[in-house]
Amino acid sequence: MSASRPQSLRDLAAYCGATLKGDGSVLISGISSIASAKPGDVVFAENEEKLNLALASAAYAVIAEDSARQSSFSKPLLIATDPKRAFTRVATLFSTREVREGQDESAQVHLSAQIGEHVWIGPGVVVEEEVRIGDHTFIGANSVVCAGATVGQQCHIGPNVTIYSGTELRDRVVVQAGAVLGSSGFGYVRDNQGRYLLFPQVGRLLVEDDVEIGANCTIDRGALDATVVRRGAKLDNMVHIGHNVDVGEDVVIAAQTGISGSSRIGTGALLGGQVGIGEHADVGPGTILGGQSGILNNKVLRGKGIVFWGTPARPLKDYLRELAVLARLARKREK
Amino acid sequence: MSASRPQSLRDLAAYCGATLKGDGSVLISGISSIASAKPGDVVFAENEEKLNLALASAAYAVIAEDSARQSSFSKPLLIATDPKRAFTRVATLFSTREVREGQDESAQVHLSAQIGEHVWIGPGVVVEEEVRIGDHTFIGANSVVCAGATVGQQCHIGPNVTIYSGTELRDRVVVQAGAVLGSSGFGYVRDNQGRYLLFPQVGRLLVEDDVEIGANCTIDRGALDATVVRRGAKLDNMVHIGHNVDVGEDVVIAAQTGISGSSRIGTGALLGGQVGIGEHADVGPGTILGGQSGILNNKVLRGKGIVFWGTPARPLKDYLRELAVLARLARKREK
Amino acid sequence: MSASRPQSLRDLAAYCGATLKGDGSVLISGISSIASAKPGDVVFAENEEKLNLALASAAYAVIAEDSARQSSFSKPLLIATDPKRAFTRVATLFSTREVREGQDESAQVHLSAQIGEHVWIGPGVVVEEEVRIGDHTFIGANSVVCAGATVGQQCHIGPNVTIYSGTELRDRVVVQAGAVLGSSGFGYVRDNQGRYLLFPQVGRLLVEDDVEIGANCTIDRGALDATVVRRGAKLDNMVHIGHNVDVGEDVVIAAQTGISGSSRIGTGALLGGQVGIGEHADVGPGTILGGQSGILNNKVLRGKGIVFWGTPARPLKDYLRELAVLARLARKREK
Repeated sequence: MSASRPQSLRDLAAYCGATLKGDGSVLISGISSIASAKPGDVVFAENEEKLNLALASAAYAVIAEDSARQSSFSKPLLIATDPKRAFTRVATLFSTREVREGQDESAQVHLSAQIGEHVWIGPGVVVEEEVRIGDHTFIGANSVVCAGATVGQQCHIGPNVTIYSGTELRDRVVVQAGAVLGSSGFGYVRDNQGRYLLFPQVGRLLVEDDVEIGANCTIDRGALDATVVRRGAKLDNMVHIGHNVDVGEDVVIAAQTGISGSSRIGTGALLGGQVGIGEHADVGPGTILGGQSGILNNKVLRGKGIVFWGTPARPLKDYLRELAVLARLARKREK
Repeated sequence: MSASRPQSLRDLAAYCGATLKGDGSVLISGISSIASAKPGDVVFAENEEKLNLALASAAYAVIAEDSARQSSFSKPLLIATDPKRAFTRVATLFSTREVREGQDESAQVHLSAQIGEHVWIGPGVVVEEEVRIGDHTFIGANSVVCAGATVGQQCHIGPNVTIYSGTELRDRVVVQAGAVLGSSGFGYVRDNQGRYLLFPQVGRLLVEDDVEIGANCTIDRGALDATVVRRGAKLDNMVHIGHNVDVGEDVVIAAQTGISGSSRIGTGALLGGQVGIGEHADVGPGTILGGQSGILNNKVLRGKGIVFWGTPARPLKDYLRELAVLARLARKREK
Repeated sequence: MSASRPQSLRDLAAYCGATLKGDGSVLISGISSIASAKPGDVVFAENEEKLNLALASAAYAVIAEDSARQSSFSKPLLIATDPKRAFTRVATLFSTREVREGQDESAQVHLSAQIGEHVWIGPGVVVEEEVRIGDHTFIGANSVVCAGATVGQQCHIGPNVTIYSGTELRDRVVVQAGAVLGSSGFGYVRDNQGRYLLFPQVGRLLVEDDVEIGANCTIDRGALDATVVRRGAKLDNMVHIGHNVDVGEDVVIAAQTGISGSSRIGTGALLGGQVGIGEHADVGPGTILGGQSGILNNKVLRGKGIVFWGTPARPLKDYLRELAVLARLARKREK
């Protein structure tokens, strides 16, 4: 990743809150891993072993931790309490995310749509009637924004995304390719003949500021009210969120996890990959669910900072003890 | 959801088979949840607590159960044996599903395609040669219907859907955004050098009447014969159906469940979310599989109305007993 | 599946390395299953029961195993050590995969893109700047190939696929509909206020020769370096591959399996469906993981040809013994 404009190491230090050690006039033109560093790059080192590798690389400078302060080094350093965080911050200066404006001539934008300033609407995009799109938002090629949906400012929507009617994205929302937002939920009643009738799925989907949604995720609209994904939540690829679910602020959900209808995930909870959560479950703030764990319908789970694992999910230490007991019994049986 | 045309409560009672109690001339213009009810809405109440909330809401009328018959109420009631079902039925009168006809000028429809009457073909849609589309069907923006595929009458296909060649959808099939129907199955043979050769995947996919398919589902065509999803089956989001699978009538499959090649799911079976079913398995009619349970290759599972859980799936009571025994042993060990 | 050009049985025998028994001048015009065989077809039979069915079918000839050599039969036979493999090979002669060339007028191809010879670029396809596409490659309708991405020769890309910038597909890669290649990975650091910042996700994705990728798969690009899917790997539908993962040659991954960031899967490993693999795990060459099994973060698993199952994954025989012990204890308790 090359920067359009090189930055002095002194400026980088100030930008990321690091302490400069060495020649601050060195010009940095990009970021990289240690393994692929080339002249002009800055890299980061999380421990002494990585630091040695970084110093031996072609990088011009290294972001390293406090302990690197003592000795003398062959390259200038940026000393930071959290080198990875400082590096992440520096990286934003060299971001190559394309800034485009305008509307590809192959896009189909309804006359009644309200499009902000500095918006890019890519080739083949379909924007239906009464859609609103905020300033500085990017809509990737062949995406579809259905009638009445709203996309806020500085959003970045990847290609082939579908945003159904009844969906509102606030600001700085990132949606990767193939995701489907505001689809109809999965709720049925049986008729007299035992056949399934779709319960009305006419609610809304609200996605708040700074939410990031991975590729091929699906988030259903509410049945009568709203599905909500709150400020700062991050969803990995292929996450499924059912109707009327409430995902709290800063919740992190790893890939292929599914949350059934009407469940709540509290602020800051961490969900591993392939977790399954039943209907009307309530996972408390800060709870941590290990990969592939399962939460039953109607379950209330509380435990800020506590790890749960297994199906049904129980405290990690209980689960590990069960695994150990079972393995021992099986070995004993074998003899 | 606002109705285009208000309906009298008397008419609604007749339409959904409920008994009117109160002023039948009240005009209803929409449905809603109790929480978001506004004047003109009808709501439903499944129990007395909900009924009290409903009566205190702004709704004009409440669909409630028999027990509500005794006393006097502040709003007119529709008395139904199953209020949720009656409400679902009433909701169809206020459906705002858009009815469109015609073909967006940006759609690419092959001259050899046979398009029925009152069909909508959205912007960017691609309809290849020899495709047939029945009357009153809706094809959402940027969807692709490949050569020779058939879509029946009154189907509703969302945006960004792919329907491969060899696929036939019968009538009233609903497919949500991003689903892929008729993809090539996953079957290989190894050649002399141990490399994988794709076994021919040239069969068909048949999706019968009234099937509903969630967002980002994938259903493979048969290898040499057909994959079949039978009348009335309902698939939640991100369900995967392998080649040559036979999904029975009125089967319900929750999100992220996967069914491997050549397995059969009997009529009316209920599959929870994230269930995994191996190849050539046979799940009997009416069987119920709990979320995340797993069925091995070639397994024959019978048990109408019986719940199975775990991997490998066993009767729920056995599984719960195992969980209890294990937890007890682990606690004992701890002491 | 009908052949455009019938082939003599004698030629088929030579092509697939089988021994002809019977009239070699018989003309074969297609392949089929035994159940749906019609005159002109060749079928295969893996055992004597299937052979009897095949001989009673309308097929003109049967590919069967050695043991069929002894007796006399009502149809000509092709004797092969592996009938299914021979059939698979024969099937390629009758493949109806369409060969198209050119560029649909509704495709948007940037002037700076380098397009090979005999390439098909379907309706609604978007090919951005600096993209390179090799000879004989097929790009399905409404797919998007982002700036700078490379697609090799003889690739087949289905409809509605997204190929992000930074992705390189080598030759003969098959990608089914809805897949997303090169999406941004899922890695965050927390800022001073505890909010999540996306770690830079600016690496590459390399997909080597002969890889096949199922419908709606997602494969993230590397964070700073590359995600790699090596020669001949086969991915079923809805497989998720995280950033910086290294999938070895000839690895086979069944549907809905997910591999978290920076993990390695050794050559020839077999992963069942719905397997979950944590971050920085290392699964050795030839290892076999049963469906729904789980591998923890940082785990190193070695065992060529050994089956592991469960979460956390353990050798199959250990896991089965544990299941047996647990079931026995639960039954004992019941009494």
